[in-house]
Amino acid sequence: MDREFTEKLTIFWESGAIMLVDQTKLPIAYKLIKITTINQLINAINRLKVRGAPALGAAGAYGIALAAHNSRARTVSKLKTHVHAAGRSILATRPTAANLFYGVDRVLKAIEPCITSDEVRETALDEAIRIAEEDVITNKALSVVGASLLKDGDVVMTYCNAGRLATVGWGTALGVIRSAIKEGKRIAVYACETRPLNQGSRITAFELLEDNIPTTLIADNMAAWIMRQGKIDHVIVGADRITRSEVYNKVGTYMLAICAKNHGIPFYVAAPLSTFDYESSVVKIEERDANELRFCGGQQIAPSAVQVENPAFDATPVEFITGIITEEGIMDPQHIFHRSDTQS
Amino acid sequence: MDREFTEKLTIFWESGAIMLVDQTKLPIAYKLIKITTINQLINAINRLKVRGAPALGAAGAYGIALAAHNSRARTVSKLKTHVHAAGRSILATRPTAANLFYGVDRVLKAIEPCITSDEVRETALDEAIRIAEEDVITNKALSVVGASLLKDGDVVMTYCNAGRLATVGWGTALGVIRSAIKEGKRIAVYACETRPLNQGSRITAFELLEDNIPTTLIADNMAAWIMRQGKIDHVIVGADRITRSEVYNKVGTYMLAICAKNHGIPFYVAAPLSTFDYESSVVKIEERDANELRFCGGQQIAPSAVQVENPAFDATPVEFITGIITEEGIMDPQHIFHRSDTQS
Repeated sequence: MDREFTEKLTIFWESGAIMLVDQTKLPIAYKLIKITTINQLINAINRLKVRGAPALGAAGAYGIALAAHNSRARTVSKLKTHVHAAGRSILATRPTAANLFYGVDRVLKAIEPCITSDEVRETALDEAIRIAEEDVITNKALSVVGASLLKDGDVVMTYCNAGRLATVGWGTALGVIRSAIKEGKRIAVYACETRPLNQGSRITAFELLEDNIPTTLIADNMAAWIMRQGKIDHVIVGADRITRSEVYNKVGTYMLAICAKNHGIPFYVAAPLSTFDYESSVVKIEERDANELRFCGGQQIAPSAVQVENPAFDATPVEFITGIITEEGIMDPQHIFHRSDTQS
Repeated sequence: MDREFTEKLTIFWESGAIMLVDQTKLPIAYKLIKITTINQLINAINRLKVRGAPALGAAGAYGIALAAHNSRARTVSKLKTHVHAAGRSILATRPTAANLFYGVDRVLKAIEPCITSDEVRETALDEAIRIAEEDVITNKALSVVGASLLKDGDVVMTYCNAGRLATVGWGTALGVIRSAIKEGKRIAVYACETRPLNQGSRITAFELLEDNIPTTLIADNMAAWIMRQGKIDHVIVGADRITRSEVYNKVGTYMLAICAKNHGIPFYVAAPLSTFDYESSVVKIEERDANELRFCGGQQIAPSAVQVENPAFDATPVEFITGIITEEGIMDPQHIFHRSDTQS
């Protein structure tokens, strides 16, 4: 059986603008929006119209290309100043996502040697397009690696959305599932809804159904109970940043990892190497608006006066993680930094 | 400091009708509804206008009184037949709640010896009122027992709503917190929102704020991360049914218990003895409507076609539970049935 999957890109460059799928409209509407200014991009990132670590990497990279494209600077030095300022405001949006920094930094590095304004604009766009193209290639590579872990009939639990809509295409955790199915294995998925913004219900369920992958939606609090009933063979999630000691991902990942360990279920993280952060030991966790928890679907579900904690991410110690699925192979999370250590 | 708490009753009898707080309208409106027929009562239970194990016990008891009150049977035997039929339809609503069975059974037993219709009606109502009154007394007794576990400055995490609105008054898990505060201890609460029906955000946050108890609302998936930061001293939850080996409570309780154990945080269940079920080893877990997860606040948040599992409860093995707070003292959950065993 040669299964076909949706290969539409989530984010791309078209006629001087960034085109991206507005993820806040899912699952009701699949709608592309056109981003022509840095302010629009920042707004789109803040409001999670574009989200997912690898997609943010591409968004950041295209943002630099857009800043260069839009700048009316008369000198190359002024152009570079404009572009760097745009980079700083893009990076201020979401402090936890490693890939956002990766995308912005890589384009800024690429334009360093440029000596004319045209060269800056062209190089920035070329590098951004390369980052976006590499994302799909990398995801497909890590997905083949991860697929080797799955056997016919397996049931995988996933969290938040680490699919094609969190990336430029194919996906990481959901890419692994796609690749396993492409190899002819029957794989079913349990998707956790992922409060408070329901990326699991809205986005993961949407894209899995679009590809006819059997999917069961549950509330996050049901995961342990589903595990206890023996329904889950593997948990596979994405990551926003991986340090030497912890995996930063959507809040709830840590809970899922504890529950998986308690039930002896392998817990894998699928992420490109661009998610790794070899430098940081303390990572800032983004705290989001309290009203995300006080309202749902436009309806108030909690008293206005109640205090709220709403961290967007949590940190899972690597001891809870069976392996990290990357484009270079499956890494033992407790020994991922040896090569870099010996190189430095 | 002698703190005052809301002492309004959640459910009571007035002029031939059951009056109860419509919990689906919280936190926007605090509204009493009048139940004059068994069909209205069944609808109110099914739609969770009345919910919470002890409140359901009183609702079931008052339901029998209402059936007796409304019946036009000409003989006492026909009246008893009507009343038993009403009992069966009330019990069919929520198969997991032990207290519902307790309330219905106790009133049915009380009317057994009655020989006139008037006697049946009077006895049923007396017994229902007694059950409701005992509920408040019992909750206050177990709350004093539980308060001895808490010290000044403690932070308690709770789940779903085990407060005055889940009972006739005072509450179980939240009753423990009220009693500790009444003793002069400063106690703060983390309330988990409790998907998919948000009893934590809608009801627990509402009633704690009403009593000026410091409350922080979180999504269920954040609980483990909040624990990891050392913010929680105790977890206290209610229960819908307690068997020899497991505690049945709102789905997500099991996840919370695993996470508490992982962080060395004591995990207590607060429940009256009427929640204990010495007979059952297999308990039916109510599966609720899939649309509870596909919609939120009237807005669609998941594709219509996605399959859903929506168990209302889960079962936590007693090994995860530090103690069960009852009106007779704190029970070691692994040795709760010895007395009954030796008596039988």
